[in-house]
Amino acid sequence: MSNSLGIHALSLRSEPWGASRYKRAVESTLAQAGVTIGASARCDIRVHDERAYAAFLQGSMGVGEAYMDGHWSAEHLDHLMARLFAAGLQADPPGIGTFAREVLAKVVNFQSRSRAFRVAEVHYDAGNDLFERMLDSEMVYTCAYWSEGDTLESAQRAKLDLVCRKLGLAPGMRVLDIGCGFGAFMKYACENYGVTCVGYSVSAQQTALARARCAGLPVEIVLEDYRAIPRSGQTFDRVVSIGMLEAVGVQNYRTFMQVVHDVLRPDGVALVHTVGSNVSAQHGDPWIDRYIFPNGMLPSIAQLGAATEGLLVMEDWHNFGPHYDKTLLAWNERFQAAWPELKSSYTERFKRMWELYLLAFAGAFRARSYQLWQLVLTRPGCPQPLCRVS
Amino acid sequence: MSNSLGIHALSLRSEPWGASRYKRAVESTLAQAGVTIGASARCDIRVHDERAYAAFLQGSMGVGEAYMDGHWSAEHLDHLMARLFAAGLQADPPGIGTFAREVLAKVVNFQSRSRAFRVAEVHYDAGNDLFERMLDSEMVYTCAYWSEGDTLESAQRAKLDLVCRKLGLAPGMRVLDIGCGFGAFMKYACENYGVTCVGYSVSAQQTALARARCAGLPVEIVLEDYRAIPRSGQTFDRVVSIGMLEAVGVQNYRTFMQVVHDVLRPDGVALVHTVGSNVSAQHGDPWIDRYIFPNGMLPSIAQLGAATEGLLVMEDWHNFGPHYDKTLLAWNERFQAAWPELKSSYTERFKRMWELYLLAFAGAFRARSYQLWQLVLTRPGCPQPLCRVS
Repeated sequence: MSNSLGIHALSLRSEPWGASRYKRAVESTLAQAGVTIGASARCDIRVHDERAYAAFLQGSMGVGEAYMDGHWSAEHLDHLMARLFAAGLQADPPGIGTFAREVLAKVVNFQSRSRAFRVAEVHYDAGNDLFERMLDSEMVYTCAYWSEGDTLESAQRAKLDLVCRKLGLAPGMRVLDIGCGFGAFMKYACENYGVTCVGYSVSAQQTALARARCAGLPVEIVLEDYRAIPRSGQTFDRVVSIGMLEAVGVQNYRTFMQVVHDVLRPDGVALVHTVGSNVSAQHGDPWIDRYIFPNGMLPSIAQLGAATEGLLVMEDWHNFGPHYDKTLLAWNERFQAAWPELKSSYTERFKRMWELYLLAFAGAFRARSYQLWQLVLTRPGCPQPLCRVS
Repeated sequence: MSNSLGIHALSLRSEPWGASRYKRAVESTLAQAGVTIGASARCDIRVHDERAYAAFLQGSMGVGEAYMDGHWSAEHLDHLMARLFAAGLQADPPGIGTFAREVLAKVVNFQSRSRAFRVAEVHYDAGNDLFERMLDSEMVYTCAYWSEGDTLESAQRAKLDLVCRKLGLAPGMRVLDIGCGFGAFMKYACENYGVTCVGYSVSAQQTALARARCAGLPVEIVLEDYRAIPRSGQTFDRVVSIGMLEAVGVQNYRTFMQVVHDVLRPDGVALVHTVGSNVSAQHGDPWIDRYIFPNGMLPSIAQLGAATEGLLVMEDWHNFGPHYDKTLLAWNERFQAAWPELKSSYTERFKRMWELYLLAFAGAFRARSYQLWQLVLTRPGCPQPLCRVS
């Protein structure tokens, strides 16, 4: 089972097919999801190159690469993806490739400490100019909270404040931020709640910018994996991890929670913010893995339950998945608007890859296949904190 | 692993011991939890019969039965139990008995349909007079919600209203209540939200009283197990189950969730309210199983995650475990006050059994070993309801 991009349910055919036969197979399968395919403006999927039909038979990798190559397009890519997700179509055609990934994922720790920096090199170091244009002014690269804001700016501020209130931050508290990105949470928490922060990140580019943005604040940033955090003392009042668990991997969820447990003061509070999946997977989607988030995968409730069991008590589990649909659309809008200025630094193929990433995820959240979870956690035996806020 | 009552960590000894040797073994183990034992008023545990020491070496069954027999007592039974839970002492001495229960729990479905009525016969049919005296006037036999009420009456009403608001009840909706008890939720929902209800219960005595209390309201009550609910049509707008999952058993959580899924309209909302455990168990505590809730056991997050996976989307997971501590103390207070009137119908041994049950659970919640969970669930692909209320 994988965190499927939900692109199609077609199985690999070994015999050589003519283009028309590929076309018929793709059309009849997509028709089950109410999706039409062709070359006209009325079709949900417009095919610009006949090779797209064969690509559609090759799982998310084929579909994604064909999109990047301009072999097909869709006027409403997010609607299309939501419909494919809603129909429950599988991204991975069952076959030897899927089987091999399943086996490998159990044997190899794809998110080992030595591999942990890979996602930074491929994704987070893609270019700060890109993220500066796409994100809000505080550069929050995680799901916004639209209940209290109707612009990306205000919704991201609302999310940061929601986290601070759930954690019950108070002046002088020492806060650990695991996967601190561009430092937006630490900056907000220091400026508005008077805490001091230590952040960990595996992205050199993010860390450089985060240090600059947090200059003058009681913030220390360490360019290291979460497994390098000293665990000998329970030295943090609060631990937060916003949008980093997606890179941890099922083999390491327990280690991650053990780190949270070990560094937290006995009466401390932790908050983990992550995208979640409806199904327990052993690996991520192949196209996303190659092009967007190397070694990324989404946890399930059962996996997080097993990972925290006996280590941490779950005090509150908030799901606001639909807010990520809106966030991704806002990012895509800003990305498209900035493209004329970004195009000198990035290829057209990169642009298509990036918009497919943003809009495929938007579709997955709209179809309710992916969720956005905030878990508040404490050490066993602690009094319950006042963390049930919205 | 069992949902341990947390009574002690002592292992069974096969060799015959003298009373003083038992005493030393018990004292030294309990000292680790900061608990003193003896015959004086200053001790946490007062021993009235030397046989109590040997009983303490026999797991929760020995401790519980010795309490029922009056061999030991405690001035603050709830504090004592909280301290034992907090120290993480095991209820079951490791031995052939525990091993046999582990194996049996995997082979035998202790909560099969044919056994499902057993808990009703032993517990819920204990006598409506008892429950009428112990509970609030609406006879809500589940955790109250003290955030909005400071008496048992108002806190129970607040809980019922909380559930109605999380479900988003509106006039004309058809609601299924799985394990409807004395009918308090259905009565409240009909009177205040204009819905119609169908309730299922395995307790004949509860059903008789529930029918009387709901007379004149659009409420139908079926004396049947949840597995008897017709699943052919998605005929309910809302499904609720308040304090019944504790009787379902790990082998049947998936079946339970399948029933919820099958009876729920495509855009329906379900709420499951249950006591939860920090650990994944295969069976319940032996003393609780024999005397209080036959075949009862508490689910873990991992178990509920596995049971709902692919069937239902978790929209919100609220933990208000500490409210059960307060609820149980209120019940015990009312039970003790009513004892002079109840004693003609119950034995002194029953009284001691009942107060141990109430106060041991209070201690477990205070120590944060047990949680009280409300999960809001929808069918996959549905828009998220507005269910995040407190």
